[in-house]
Amino acid sequence: MLKISSTQKAYLAGFIDGDGSIYVRLKPNDDYRYGFQVSPYIILFQSAKDEEIFKKVCSLINCGYLRKRKDGILEYTIGRVADIKSFLEMIGPYLILKKRQADLMLKILEKKELVDNKNDFKKLMDLIDKFRDLNYSKKRKKHKLTP
Amino acid sequence: MLKISSTQKAYLAGFIDGDGSIYVRLKPNDDYRYGFQVSPYIILFQSAKDEEIFKKVCSLINCGYLRKRKDGILEYTIGRVADIKSFLEMIGPYLILKKRQADLMLKILEKKELVDNKNDFKKLMDLIDKFRDLNYSKKRKKHKLTP
Repeated sequence: MLKISSTQKAYLAGFIDGDGSIYVRLKPNDDYRYGFQVSPYIILFQSAKDEEIFKKVCSLINCGYLRKRKDGILEYTIGRVADIKSFLEMIGPYLILKKRQADLMLKILEKKELVDNKNDFKKLMDLIDKFRDLNYSKKRKKHKLTP
Repeated sequence: MLKISSTQKAYLAGFIDGDGSIYVRLKPNDDYRYGFQVSPYIILFQSAKDEEIFKKVCSLINCGYLRKRKDGILEYTIGRVADIKSFLEMIGPYLILKKRQADLMLKILEKKELVDNKNDFKKLMDLIDKFRDLNYSKKRKKHKLTP
């Protein structure tokens, strides 16, 4: 991640508050010990019409990947745990609307490192489910471990 | 308008770049000399679910009005010319994606003061129509003065 100025950090916090997303997905995947892959994301969105200028914004972050969705929306995604942590530490002090999501994300990443058994993982899943309340997802399905 | 810090200005620029709108509407209105009212707007959007925290963002600006649309989206609108000018002078240096809209807005507000005849107003309308190219509006109607 690049060294950027405090106003650039504040700009990115405003951008994320306006049109960004901070969340963790639980993907069912039997290759993982507890049946789920824990996938954290920070995503910035923009219309594909402004791709060239949007790349300037993304270049301030410089640790994600850009993709164009079929509906014409550009998504710039930060998906690696180390990058997410340093990005949130950088913009965290300037976040207003998504401050709770950022704090929850950091808590989840911390707990994830400490998971030692099925009960720990169940607690982690409960934390991850809290994003639904913060992010007004339409999916109200609560995740459950198979017994 | 309040005195705010440079990181607060940069935050607001990021918010506007992420999920804000800068444009001028031409409203047909026979009470006006050339048949149109020129209405400039800067709008910040947010889900109504986060109304309380969104008000914190709005309080940094402190010169607009908040309304809730029927679809549940909150709009904070800056509509007075003097406020728009000082707001854009404040956040302008930090804008990236909507820099062109901000410059076009300031140019239009300047030209509007100097309108002296129908030809001047026609040129002003042409400038206003340029927002369509920048803001990817679905309405492609070009405004025309009645002869």
